[in-house]
Amino acid sequence: MTDTWEDVNDHSEVENSMQPEDTPELRELYAGFERENLIPLWTQLDDLMPMAPNPKAVPWVWRWSKLQPLAERAGDLVPVGRGGERRAIGLANPGMGGRAYISPTLWAAIQQLGPHETAPEHRHSQNAFRFVTSGEGVWTVVNGDPVRMSRGDFLLTPGWNFHGHHNETDQSMTWIDGLDIPFAYQMDTGFFEFGSERVTDYATPNFSRSERLWCHPGLRPLSGLHNTVNSPIGAYRWENTDRALTDQLLLEDEGHPATVEQGHAAVRYVNPTTGGDVMPTIRAQFHRLRPGVATAPRREVGTSMFQVFEGEGLVELGDAEYHVGHGDMFVVPSWVRYSIKAENQLDLFHFNDHPIFEKLALARTHIEGEAR
Amino acid sequence: MTDTWEDVNDHSEVENSMQPEDTPELRELYAGFERENLIPLWTQLDDLMPMAPNPKAVPWVWRWSKLQPLAERAGDLVPVGRGGERRAIGLANPGMGGRAYISPTLWAAIQQLGPHETAPEHRHSQNAFRFVTSGEGVWTVVNGDPVRMSRGDFLLTPGWNFHGHHNETDQSMTWIDGLDIPFAYQMDTGFFEFGSERVTDYATPNFSRSERLWCHPGLRPLSGLHNTVNSPIGAYRWENTDRALTDQLLLEDEGHPATVEQGHAAVRYVNPTTGGDVMPTIRAQFHRLRPGVATAPRREVGTSMFQVFEGEGLVELGDAEYHVGHGDMFVVPSWVRYSIKAENQLDLFHFNDHPIFEKLALARTHIEGEAR
Amino acid sequence: MTDTWEDVNDHSEVENSMQPEDTPELRELYAGFERENLIPLWTQLDDLMPMAPNPKAVPWVWRWSKLQPLAERAGDLVPVGRGGERRAIGLANPGMGGRAYISPTLWAAIQQLGPHETAPEHRHSQNAFRFVTSGEGVWTVVNGDPVRMSRGDFLLTPGWNFHGHHNETDQSMTWIDGLDIPFAYQMDTGFFEFGSERVTDYATPNFSRSERLWCHPGLRPLSGLHNTVNSPIGAYRWENTDRALTDQLLLEDEGHPATVEQGHAAVRYVNPTTGGDVMPTIRAQFHRLRPGVATAPRREVGTSMFQVFEGEGLVELGDAEYHVGHGDMFVVPSWVRYSIKAENQLDLFHFNDHPIFEKLALARTHIEGEAR
Amino acid sequence: MTDTWEDVNDHSEVENSMQPEDTPELRELYAGFERENLIPLWTQLDDLMPMAPNPKAVPWVWRWSKLQPLAERAGDLVPVGRGGERRAIGLANPGMGGRAYISPTLWAAIQQLGPHETAPEHRHSQNAFRFVTSGEGVWTVVNGDPVRMSRGDFLLTPGWNFHGHHNETDQSMTWIDGLDIPFAYQMDTGFFEFGSERVTDYATPNFSRSERLWCHPGLRPLSGLHNTVNSPIGAYRWENTDRALTDQLLLEDEGHPATVEQGHAAVRYVNPTTGGDVMPTIRAQFHRLRPGVATAPRREVGTSMFQVFEGEGLVELGDAEYHVGHGDMFVVPSWVRYSIKAENQLDLFHFNDHPIFEKLALARTHIEGEAR
Repeated sequence: MTDTWEDVNDHSEVENSMQPEDTPELRELYAGFERENLIPLWTQLDDLMPMAPNPKAVPWVWRWSKLQPLAERAGDLVPVGRGGERRAIGLANPGMGGRAYISPTLWAAIQQLGPHETAPEHRHSQNAFRFVTSGEGVWTVVNGDPVRMSRGDFLLTPGWNFHGHHNETDQSMTWIDGLDIPFAYQMDTGFFEFGSERVTDYATPNFSRSERLWCHPGLRPLSGLHNTVNSPIGAYRWENTDRALTDQLLLEDEGHPATVEQGHAAVRYVNPTTGGDVMPTIRAQFHRLRPGVATAPRREVGTSMFQVFEGEGLVELGDAEYHVGHGDMFVVPSWVRYSIKAENQLDLFHFNDHPIFEKLALARTHIEGEAR
Repeated sequence: MTDTWEDVNDHSEVENSMQPEDTPELRELYAGFERENLIPLWTQLDDLMPMAPNPKAVPWVWRWSKLQPLAERAGDLVPVGRGGERRAIGLANPGMGGRAYISPTLWAAIQQLGPHETAPEHRHSQNAFRFVTSGEGVWTVVNGDPVRMSRGDFLLTPGWNFHGHHNETDQSMTWIDGLDIPFAYQMDTGFFEFGSERVTDYATPNFSRSERLWCHPGLRPLSGLHNTVNSPIGAYRWENTDRALTDQLLLEDEGHPATVEQGHAAVRYVNPTTGGDVMPTIRAQFHRLRPGVATAPRREVGTSMFQVFEGEGLVELGDAEYHVGHGDMFVVPSWVRYSIKAENQLDLFHFNDHPIFEKLALARTHIEGEAR
Repeated sequence: MTDTWEDVNDHSEVENSMQPEDTPELRELYAGFERENLIPLWTQLDDLMPMAPNPKAVPWVWRWSKLQPLAERAGDLVPVGRGGERRAIGLANPGMGGRAYISPTLWAAIQQLGPHETAPEHRHSQNAFRFVTSGEGVWTVVNGDPVRMSRGDFLLTPGWNFHGHHNETDQSMTWIDGLDIPFAYQMDTGFFEFGSERVTDYATPNFSRSERLWCHPGLRPLSGLHNTVNSPIGAYRWENTDRALTDQLLLEDEGHPATVEQGHAAVRYVNPTTGGDVMPTIRAQFHRLRPGVATAPRREVGTSMFQVFEGEGLVELGDAEYHVGHGDMFVVPSWVRYSIKAENQLDLFHFNDHPIFEKLALARTHIEGEAR
Repeated sequence: MTDTWEDVNDHSEVENSMQPEDTPELRELYAGFERENLIPLWTQLDDLMPMAPNPKAVPWVWRWSKLQPLAERAGDLVPVGRGGERRAIGLANPGMGGRAYISPTLWAAIQQLGPHETAPEHRHSQNAFRFVTSGEGVWTVVNGDPVRMSRGDFLLTPGWNFHGHHNETDQSMTWIDGLDIPFAYQMDTGFFEFGSERVTDYATPNFSRSERLWCHPGLRPLSGLHNTVNSPIGAYRWENTDRALTDQLLLEDEGHPATVEQGHAAVRYVNPTTGGDVMPTIRAQFHRLRPGVATAPRREVGTSMFQVFEGEGLVELGDAEYHVGHGDMFVVPSWVRYSIKAENQLDLFHFNDHPIFEKLALARTHIEGEAR
């Protein structure tokens, strides 16, 4: 697909010159349209079919220093249990009209679970993951398989899997959730079902059964030869992510191609049955930038959300620049130009909705020729 | 995926009982949320994550007897040309908040082109088709290939193909357009580009080059071995559609399986390079019901739109029933139960957004066990 | 895969210099190998792992003027019926050691059926097709579906489908068969089962049920949405093939890309459920060359077999050149250079085993830069 | 595909009764066939198209106690170097007519490399792997990436990758090789090219670059998003294989499904870019049986080869039974019934050609209803 966004010219001007003259006959015609639930294209074209995506969502940064205290305070005041299924606080993009949407497709939240609390089991067709910004001591039970949650881990609860959480410690814990709630809501695809009011298994193993079956590199169990839409892995452990990134940078040091751009190591979390994305609507990745490195500015169809895991950096989002540090989250709406620059070594968790657009042949990416 | 929609119970009741007590501390917490662009899930769950899809779009019927005169009248009053790109009048679902959307994904319009007029060339990433309810004499030029438009034909202008139309006759012509404009708009994927102010080729061949290359059953040109996301066929002719449906009913008469259910012949328009849908976001089909036959009531995730091509019937849409005849169009929102009954032989053009949901593993269908 | 065949040098010379010295100890070692069913690689490498394919099959031409009289004579002397399942006479490549193989993968035969004879039903895992060089009046019954056989038609009996033939006329008829018998035999994949001693349906319809369901261009029956490994089409009719080729040459005349190379129209017979080959092991195509046109010389991994349907030409096969006319068949073994030149308009039926090698990532093609 | 092998009846009897009467006319016809390189099907059918596969390859066991001393002795007498590319001794199935084939598709050999020797670099289109029965100290250099070879490791050199080996120790080392040489030879697909006479990198890292990029479970480098036909992993380490099998048996002990049948743990080596087989023609697996466990008797289209890595057991191969221990290798030809019973814990390396037949829709498996 030819990439023509750069010479985009506004078509409203041309269009306005073509509006029909305002006459009594035209008004009568328009009244007829309204009576019959019709709307002419020629009054709408500029907004409905822009020259390039013109998202309502805006670039935005949420600060961890604000999020976490509010989540902890919610722990004091708000119960968790059947009905109040989760103590999750959604990030609301100011452009999205008062909805807890970071974009038209994605939801992100900070979730808190107090000491010895249980969030009851339910399931929904919406796909969900958790990323553990810090802490430990909670297990999430996914279709009966207890999965430990610890700092830096990426955990899956794909659509229609029963899941609940319980905190085995005397401290509360917070983490972030990502889901495709806005997509499901706007596309009318959502189903929901209540499950057990307690989790179905309170065991606290170090490794879930899913990991013991599936996390041996290059090996696939013969009992699991049927490909699945969702990854069968319940948890992607920080140790593995960290080691993979470390190896990429070492290989780069040794003179071998391994990084995605100079000084920028990155991995994608994948479904081992296919090598593809972990869930059909959500892509998740982890990036590590060497100090001083900046990513090539790019625009992409779809929404990206980042959370700083460690380190500090500067983010260009459209015309603005933000300084970000541990736990800060920022959203890049569709076709907004962005670049990330590391001040010290910068570790970033990243998720997006690109699989939706790739599967529908609607993906476009423009990467500027030269990194700064 | 287990199909549990039938025992859906409302969760608002359970949920309401769990709302935290309204205290000054809670109000302060909520004020903090608002300041930081946060929204708690526990006040939103019932709406955001319903037990089953609860679409804003409503079942609706647009009458051809009203649409066509308004389109003709627009032909008198509204110019067509650069800026006023198309004399297309969109069908606006009353539930969609004043937008010309039949659903969150799909756009349908009636388009009119007057004697000897030209609608100028442009292209957009939105996928489009036309279905010719009646008439002839217009050619649409798709990436330089002139394609005749005649009654009963189904024509493609997939995303990012330049296209314009011209009417070679002394009569105006109307047809219907289908696009994925609402999906592109809400998902921020749309690109648009102006082309020639005239069509690039005013030839009026009976068959487009695309048909001459691709419409020989079971044969593929060696010059076209590369699979394409969109069908390379510009026009699916009524003669072929009619013959395929006739053959299915004859085979059924002869005792062989050929129809999709008793008395219900149906074909899908497909991409010959893959056997799959014509475009990534839109499925198109044609149905023929014998007199007296009713389709098994069903619910599906996603939106279906039908237009009566010939014959008369009764349509159950949720709790309402409508009598429909030539040219009438009706929309079935996500998960709304529907069934169509033929009074005399009923021919129906049908398009939907199901490929979106199938590719994302979000499709669900429930067909009632017994047709009436 | 880098294409390095051109600078192939023989490695026997290098190798021979490396053979170990013939000593009593070595002889004892070799005797030990023999006792234990072992063979050293170093005495075999040059033959076993050549620099480029060195097929045992040789380029060969079978003359229709010889084949058809012998087939007719067999009709006088050899019964057809259970046990003598088919009056088929296989083409034996002189290089294949007395087997009726045209190559290590493919079988071709001329089959004859006398007036009012029936070849009984059976099925086998070997994939089969027929191409009708001339004549008419026989129906083949494939899994109960009677399929007319007429001049120029290409007909399928994919693996494990019951099939039998019957001749409804007072004249005998001959046609050619293609199967993957050598591949199945050498790879030990063959299964066989007897069926009815008569065909199960003696009806003589003009079009099989498979054609009535599947041969409407761009349309797929909703009763057939499940993809199949084999094409569901029983017969690809000459009228369609002829028209497709005619259209390609006309489009070329009109200045549009449609042919595979200048003056060379070609179609592939495909499975409409996938757009891919008709059967997993066999590709079938039809070519038409304008008078005077020569195909670019090429080499390919795998075997190609051609039959002249109409016209006359010259075929270069390796170092030899042959004049060919109506009904003549010629085989191109793996990696043998070949080119075909038309004297008058030349129509060629063509089948090969390339799908095997494409699926196994073993395909290589080298086309010389310039057609003569 | 219906599985009818059990009621296979011989068709030779029926067939023989149908042979035409031996007359002078028939002899003349047959002489005509011979002159024209033709062979009638009716004299060949029973052999060519058997009721079920009737392989020439026979079930066979090669004893490690015989193989290894012969390989070591070859090390004394036979040089390795350019021309004598490898000191590899092929296992020759007694049914395969004096070829070093274990079956029509697969080659297996024991390879020996003496102290401080180098086997020079070359490449070929044949796919190859090595499995290290015991020992260590050799590195194989695959397209420039040095890969350590140690006991229990499974190593890949897919088609057309340059590779050589060097032994860094004062002891010789042996391992087994598996290739698709017979398939390539009989199908005429083989290409070969000499490379460096020394290996291109004598470094001896513990882990190859391929492992450092690709062996982090569930993670894919962003620099490697393009799917590849062959696995990018150079070595599958024994530690991972052992741990995966241990975990499967522990999960079974804990009451969860993890094994392929009761007491039978098994993993497949896979390509992480697709989750599929490591190379297009060869599947590799590792099995662990608890003491006393026997696998359900089965028949499969295609050839399987096993090597006992540790433990002892009894193998039923067709009508015969063999006792096997460390290093012993046995081949199961197409459609031969087999079962393996463990005496003590039995670890088995296993490779086969099933991907060939699965891709060509020729695979069939029959597993007997009950394990003993």
